[in-house]
Amino acid sequence: MDFTIQSALVPVEQGYETVDVQLIDGRIAAIAPSLEIVGAVVDGRNKLLLPGFVNAHTHSPELWQRGMIPPTPLELWIAELYEFEPLDPEQLYLSALATAVETLLSGGTSVVDHLVMIPGREVESIAAAVRAYREVGIRAFIAPLMQDEPLTASIPSGGVKREHIPYQRSTQESIELLHKAIQEFHRPDEGVVILPAPTGLQLGTDALFEGFVELSDRYTLPLHTHLLETKAQQMLAHEKYGCSAVKHLKELGFLSSRTSLAHCVWLDEADIAILAETQATVVHNPLSNLRLGSGIAPILKYLQAGINVAFGCDGCASSDSQDLLEAIKIGSILHNVTDFDYRHWMTPRKAIEIAAIGGATGLGMADEFGSLTVGKQADLVLYDLKNLSLLPRTDPIGLLVLGRPAQAVDSVWAKGNRLVANGSVTTINVDDLRQQLFDRSQWITNRQSTKIAQVEAHYRSVMNLPEQIKGYS
Amino acid sequence: MDFTIQSALVPVEQGYETVDVQLIDGRIAAIAPSLEIVGAVVDGRNKLLLPGFVNAHTHSPELWQRGMIPPTPLELWIAELYEFEPLDPEQLYLSALATAVETLLSGGTSVVDHLVMIPGREVESIAAAVRAYREVGIRAFIAPLMQDEPLTASIPSGGVKREHIPYQRSTQESIELLHKAIQEFHRPDEGVVILPAPTGLQLGTDALFEGFVELSDRYTLPLHTHLLETKAQQMLAHEKYGCSAVKHLKELGFLSSRTSLAHCVWLDEADIAILAETQATVVHNPLSNLRLGSGIAPILKYLQAGINVAFGCDGCASSDSQDLLEAIKIGSILHNVTDFDYRHWMTPRKAIEIAAIGGATGLGMADEFGSLTVGKQADLVLYDLKNLSLLPRTDPIGLLVLGRPAQAVDSVWAKGNRLVANGSVTTINVDDLRQQLFDRSQWITNRQSTKIAQVEAHYRSVMNLPEQIKGYS
Repeated sequence: MDFTIQSALVPVEQGYETVDVQLIDGRIAAIAPSLEIVGAVVDGRNKLLLPGFVNAHTHSPELWQRGMIPPTPLELWIAELYEFEPLDPEQLYLSALATAVETLLSGGTSVVDHLVMIPGREVESIAAAVRAYREVGIRAFIAPLMQDEPLTASIPSGGVKREHIPYQRSTQESIELLHKAIQEFHRPDEGVVILPAPTGLQLGTDALFEGFVELSDRYTLPLHTHLLETKAQQMLAHEKYGCSAVKHLKELGFLSSRTSLAHCVWLDEADIAILAETQATVVHNPLSNLRLGSGIAPILKYLQAGINVAFGCDGCASSDSQDLLEAIKIGSILHNVTDFDYRHWMTPRKAIEIAAIGGATGLGMADEFGSLTVGKQADLVLYDLKNLSLLPRTDPIGLLVLGRPAQAVDSVWAKGNRLVANGSVTTINVDDLRQQLFDRSQWITNRQSTKIAQVEAHYRSVMNLPEQIKGYS
Repeated sequence: MDFTIQSALVPVEQGYETVDVQLIDGRIAAIAPSLEIVGAVVDGRNKLLLPGFVNAHTHSPELWQRGMIPPTPLELWIAELYEFEPLDPEQLYLSALATAVETLLSGGTSVVDHLVMIPGREVESIAAAVRAYREVGIRAFIAPLMQDEPLTASIPSGGVKREHIPYQRSTQESIELLHKAIQEFHRPDEGVVILPAPTGLQLGTDALFEGFVELSDRYTLPLHTHLLETKAQQMLAHEKYGCSAVKHLKELGFLSSRTSLAHCVWLDEADIAILAETQATVVHNPLSNLRLGSGIAPILKYLQAGINVAFGCDGCASSDSQDLLEAIKIGSILHNVTDFDYRHWMTPRKAIEIAAIGGATGLGMADEFGSLTVGKQADLVLYDLKNLSLLPRTDPIGLLVLGRPAQAVDSVWAKGNRLVANGSVTTINVDDLRQQLFDRSQWITNRQSTKIAQVEAHYRSVMNLPEQIKGYS
C-alpha cells in the first residue's frame, strides 16, 4: 500500500521545513512541498517526521523478568537471572511481541534481538520470535545468543584455581545450530536477518568466534556480541589472553564495518583506536549500564575518534523497558558529566542521527534505511507535536530528545507498511497481548535469590570489595 | 467527599498485601482487609497504592523554554534563558497548570515551585501560580525566586576585576515582597505554603538570606534555595567567603530540619557533616544535573551520612519534563556507577521512600503526609498494574521504579480530594490547556543565542577550558 504524508515537519540543515512525503512500493519516492497524492493520505500537520530508530541491542525473553531483580552488578545479576525456569515457545513469542510494540511506540522500526533460547528447543525459540516480529511487521535482526563456556567461567579467577562444569552444548553444535537458523529463517528481503552473535569473549572459546565469523563471511551477515560491559570482564580478558578483549577480537577477525558491539564500557585508548580502524559499531545501552553499575561508556571519546555509535535498550531484566526515546535521552545527556567541555556534548540532532543512521550503519544497512532520503526504504515515524508532553511549541527535536514524550508516536512505517496509526498498533491486538502477559505471570512478593550466595564471596574477593559492608539503614 | 479503595496492593515489610483503604474527611481513616464501605467505592484490584510523591524542586515558568536551549553548562544556559521575553501572568498560570498536570500523572501530589516572577509584577505572578495550583488541587509549595545580585556576579572572577550592574530590586524590597506574599497567599490549611527561597548564594547577599531566615522563623516556614549545583559555584563561594558555601549557609542560620537544598552536587566531606548535623534536606535533580553537565550529586554518601533526600524534576528549560517517575528512576540507578559496592545502592523501595516521605520531611511535614499511615492526610496515588509497561507481573515497585511506566497512573488524591480518575485529570480541562499552550507558542526553527557570546570567553577562561576546541563533525 502506498501513502502520501502531507504537511509534516522534517528537519533540514537550518531548522525545519514542511513537506509532503510519498511512500511508494515500500520506499520513499519523493520529499517536497505540495506533492501529488499517491495512495492513502496521512495528515502530517503539527507532526514531526523522522527516520525510524534502531533498538540495536536487546534480549526479548528478559521481558519476563522485568522489574524483578534488584540492582546488582552483572556478574551477580546474571546468576540470579539463570534461576528462572526456562520459558516455553509461546512465552518467547509473547515477549517478542511486547518488545516489538514498545519499540514501535517509542520511535523504533528495527530491533536487534540477542535472543535467549530454550535449551534443547533452540530452533523453536527462534521460530517463535520470528513469528512475532513478522506479525507486528517490525524489521527484525535476530541474533541467537550462544556461548560454549559455563557461566562460572565469566568471573575472573584472581589466580585461584577453579573447576568449571562444561557447557551443555558443544562449540560444533552451536555452529551447526547457527547454520541451521540461517538456512531456515534468514530472509533479508522480508525484513528478517539472522546474525552470528556469540554472547561474549567471557563465555566463548576462540573456536566459537571463528566459526561464527566464517558463517558471517559466507552469508554476508552482520556480527554482534557483548564487549567489555564490566570491569570484571576487562580483568578476565587479561587473564585469558594477556591482552585486551578488543585486541583479541580483532585477531579473531571479528571486527569489521558490519560488526556491532554491545556496551563497550571498559575500553582504553588503544582499544578505541582499534574500533576506529576496523569501523566496528558501539551499541550504547545507557540504562542497563547504570542499573547494573557497569559504568559510563566513553561515548564522547568514541564519537571524537570517528567510531559509529547506535543506541539499545538492552533486555528488560537489566533495563526494564523497551522505550527507545528513554535510552536516547539518557544516552545523550549522561555524557555531559564526563567532559567539562560542553563543545563536545551530544546535541539532540546528533542523538537522533545515532539512533537512526547509526543503528542502520552498525548492521551494514545504511544504504537501505536510517534517514529521510529518497530511494531508501520507508522506515519512518510520525510524532504528534500536539501531545501535552511536547508542548508548548519550541524546537521539535529538542522536545523529543530532552523531554519525556508520553504516547507521542502517531504513526510508524517499516518497509513502507504502516504498523501504527493514531497512536495504536494496527497489526496485532495489544489488549490481547496485555491480557496474556497478565495471565501468564504473578506478583512476586518477597523473592530471595538462591544462587547469588554461591558466587558472591568469590566475586567480592576478586573485585577487591570488603567482606562485610554496612549499608545505610 | 469520602472514598473506600477496595482490594489494592500496598507494600508491607515483607512484600505486598491486598487491603481496603478508607479516606474520610481528607485523611486516611483505616487500612485493612475487608473494610466497611464509606463514601464512593474505588476499585483497587490489580492496582498498586502508594503515597503521593513530592516534586521537590522545579520552576514552572520554564515550561515555555522546554526543549529549546541546547545542552550547555548552567552559567551559559542561564545567560540564554535570560534572553527570553518576560511572560505575562496568564502564561505563568498555564505553565503552572501544566506542571501540576505532569506531576500528578507521574505520581506526584505536591510541588515545590521555585517561581520565576515577572519583573515589576511579582505579586500578580505569585497569584497566577496559586490560582493554577488551587484549580488543579495539587499541594503547592510556592517559593518566589529572589536574588539581589546581578547574573554576571554568579561566575567566579578568577582574580579578574569585573564591574557588575546592580540588580533591579533592592534587598529590602525583596524582603518586603516576600512578606507581602506570605500575608496574601500563605494558607497551609488549604494546601498553599509560601517558602522563603533566595535563588542561591551565587546571586544573593548575606542580608537577603538573613532577612529570609527571619521571616521563616516568624511564620514557621520551610526554607529553600539552590546549593552548589556547579563547580563554578564552588569556586565562587571560596572567592566570596573564603570557605565553602555550606559552611557560610550554616553561619547565616539558613540550615535546619525545615530547609531543603536543590542540587548539592559539589559538597565535600566537611559539608556533608554539616548537612547531617543541621538535618537539612538535599533535593536531587538528576536529569537537570546531567543535561547541564553539572555532575553527579553524591547521593549514596548523603544517605550513608543519614541526610534526608528528596527528588525534584527542576525546571523544564534544564530538565524538559515534569515526569517524577523519570527523575526517581534515573535518580536511583545513576549512583550505581559511583560506588562499586552494590550493597550501598538504592533499592526501588528506598527510591519510593525518598520520593514520598523524603519530600515531606524536607518541607517539615512528615507528620502530615508522605506515607500510607492511618491519620495522615490522604495524598495517595493508585497505579494501574495492567498497563502494558508494567507487565508481565513481577515486583510492582520494581516495575514502577526501574521500568518506564507510560500513563500508568489511574487515580490521585491530594488532601483527600480525587484529582485524577481513570487516568484523566478531573479538576481542569487538559485538552483546553494543550490548545492554549499550542496557540501561545511557535516552532523554533533555527534559534541563535545572542547573550552566550558575552559571557562565554570569561567562563572558559575561569573554568580553564581551551579557547578553541574542535568538536566531532
